[in-house]
Amino acid sequence: MIREATGCERRRWAYTRRPVAVVTFLSDYGLEDDFAGVCHGVIATIAPDARIIDVTHGIPRHDVLAGAIVLRRALPFMPAGVHLAVVDPGVGSERRGVALRCAGEKRLLVGPDNGLLTLAAERFGGVVEAVDVGASPFALQHVAASFHGRDVFAPVAAHLALGASLAAAGEPLDPAGLAVLHHSRPEVVAAGVRAHALHADRFGNVSFDADSDDLRRAGIVPGAVLVNGVRGTYATTFADVAPGDLLLYEDSWGAPALAVNRGSAVDALGLEPGAAVAIARDT
Amino acid sequence: MIREATGCERRRWAYTRRPVAVVTFLSDYGLEDDFAGVCHGVIATIAPDARIIDVTHGIPRHDVLAGAIVLRRALPFMPAGVHLAVVDPGVGSERRGVALRCAGEKRLLVGPDNGLLTLAAERFGGVVEAVDVGASPFALQHVAASFHGRDVFAPVAAHLALGASLAAAGEPLDPAGLAVLHHSRPEVVAAGVRAHALHADRFGNVSFDADSDDLRRAGIVPGAVLVNGVRGTYATTFADVAPGDLLLYEDSWGAPALAVNRGSAVDALGLEPGAAVAIARDT
Amino acid sequence: MIREATGCERRRWAYTRRPVAVVTFLSDYGLEDDFAGVCHGVIATIAPDARIIDVTHGIPRHDVLAGAIVLRRALPFMPAGVHLAVVDPGVGSERRGVALRCAGEKRLLVGPDNGLLTLAAERFGGVVEAVDVGASPFALQHVAASFHGRDVFAPVAAHLALGASLAAAGEPLDPAGLAVLHHSRPEVVAAGVRAHALHADRFGNVSFDADSDDLRRAGIVPGAVLVNGVRGTYATTFADVAPGDLLLYEDSWGAPALAVNRGSAVDALGLEPGAAVAIARDT
Repeated sequence: MIREATGCERRRWAYTRRPVAVVTFLSDYGLEDDFAGVCHGVIATIAPDARIIDVTHGIPRHDVLAGAIVLRRALPFMPAGVHLAVVDPGVGSERRGVALRCAGEKRLLVGPDNGLLTLAAERFGGVVEAVDVGASPFALQHVAASFHGRDVFAPVAAHLALGASLAAAGEPLDPAGLAVLHHSRPEVVAAGVRAHALHADRFGNVSFDADSDDLRRAGIVPGAVLVNGVRGTYATTFADVAPGDLLLYEDSWGAPALAVNRGSAVDALGLEPGAAVAIARDT
Repeated sequence: MIREATGCERRRWAYTRRPVAVVTFLSDYGLEDDFAGVCHGVIATIAPDARIIDVTHGIPRHDVLAGAIVLRRALPFMPAGVHLAVVDPGVGSERRGVALRCAGEKRLLVGPDNGLLTLAAERFGGVVEAVDVGASPFALQHVAASFHGRDVFAPVAAHLALGASLAAAGEPLDPAGLAVLHHSRPEVVAAGVRAHALHADRFGNVSFDADSDDLRRAGIVPGAVLVNGVRGTYATTFADVAPGDLLLYEDSWGAPALAVNRGSAVDALGLEPGAAVAIARDT
Repeated sequence: MIREATGCERRRWAYTRRPVAVVTFLSDYGLEDDFAGVCHGVIATIAPDARIIDVTHGIPRHDVLAGAIVLRRALPFMPAGVHLAVVDPGVGSERRGVALRCAGEKRLLVGPDNGLLTLAAERFGGVVEAVDVGASPFALQHVAASFHGRDVFAPVAAHLALGASLAAAGEPLDPAGLAVLHHSRPEVVAAGVRAHALHADRFGNVSFDADSDDLRRAGIVPGAVLVNGVRGTYATTFADVAPGDLLLYEDSWGAPALAVNRGSAVDALGLEPGAAVAIARDT
């Protein structure tokens, strides 16, 4: 039985002594420049006691889907709080900026309304309150057309961390009208599963859009498999295959993924995001 | 009317409840090694309550001008405090190490006396007090010839964050004797503006040494422009030009810059730092 | 007389006002992904007041020796506390996970039992108490086979930072049975020192396994030297040699190292980790 890792289980140990406002922060800003740094500065100016936790700033530039996937899997391991996320190819155009309250765990999400926040919101029970922060009173006085992370989203997140209500942060909007993330879906067919590559980490491990249930329904069980015609093994851990061999495994987030022991599944299979991943039993 | 983004405007919202000593930190150390990390460790050992905010450690190695530009634009978005900056090609030679007090906002700057701090100091009203920290009593007991960031500048910054006076940190020196940053200046000519590339971010957006006033005086107005002979558009935001097209725009720091929508102005124009950037109206 | 830099000397200035639990964190996770970020999240969930200091996450993937060397040299500059380190090529196999108490300064080390922690432990007087945390009650409820950093080591470190005893974190084990790091040793011969490259930083400076005593015993004194047949100078600082020239110097950690002024010793000498480094006087 394969299940998804969840963060809440560890809370049995979380005997917090006093509330500490937490702002987590994910973006595609990288760390070579000062983009992420000045957002930290804006948050710390407004909310000096807030703790800022960087999820990552290494999302590939403008890759909203990759950002949404990483946000969804990472947030359950973050303290509940304000979750700022900015992957924003449409900055300066008409896409809205939003702040959202999720049904579960009092999680607040802040970022562009382009689908980036939707997978994480689903994970926390869906959106129960939403506001458009495009003209937020919390925004910096001068808002640059190209840096809403600094001028809109970071200050909104900081004020929410201070305890401001969502209603104070912007104009109410209907959660049903939030942007939907269009992404690929896997097919279960007689020959196995036809999935699509989603995201690769720096080690060349590749996630795809099928889950463990899809594999099971297709009759893919631990043992020999073919992935795009390449022989591999469906097993538990890297040590189960020889160095250089292909592994299909449940990754640390509870989802099936592809890896090469001491190598790179991206290189071995030539996978780009969106590429077809056909998985079959090797009989 | 184009104006420069300023950080102080947002302070209307900054209802800080108790003072938190802040040390911001910019360098060319990168994050692959432990250089930035051990400076954090030194500061945290001396000033356990200080909040350290990384501006960036991605300044190109030994590029003092790039560091000075990024420091100048980033600090207004940082809480007032101690601003540590280290881009130090002359470490171990005779360049001085300094700590400076700016006229405005009680900002303190700490780093090498090689011009790195000067643009930021101008931004905060100039230097009103300066000390040479080369033999600071706050330095670690053994100072390595090649790592003054760890052994001199970080501990000096930490003690200033604890409330030590500048006078306690080193020997007084005349601010008029501080190193000056020699950098290029733009020319306004009949044909337009002859400027020079300053700094590129990871997205390939390029800043240069002309400001919005220079453009206006040269008659460069929103509309068609030629940049080094390449057709582009002087407009507000990326969405104003087609993907792949060249954009001249006011960047998020309030200064004119060059970009290519979903591309790289560095690549499109073959610009290195210091390269000529000739901007003319395309009539 | 060349001596090793030590962190404790600076403690004369460390007038800490209240204890702040510190967790330092070193890994080979990089920052492109969310691996380091979610470990921060797990620690902050369990120990909201703990201060997390990143040593670096740029250790080359699976390079346990490089991680051990960087940990050893960096920790003396970190506040005493819990020192989490994860470079873990054997995750999911039978290698143990451990938490260790050092003889000196109350330092606690947490990570895989693959030698990563041993050099740092020696630096702090050796291990006086050790536990196997493989089945720690502090681990998250579901432990992924491939991410013990998040699911075992980070929560164990967080609980130790909260004040939990080592005995509560796992099963006692004999420190004598901890994994030993097998690494090369230099030879002092008539012609000089035969050493081996250990680790290069991002600037191409190379450390090797001989220390200053080895050089002295081999009669290598400041002046002209040959390194793998290449002429260089044994001197104090980069400014002592012309740009492009090879320098043998005491690095900022107090150990001999190789550099090229404004260049890269890695490139100049073609050194990989483990490569022979033959140092002789150039007479």
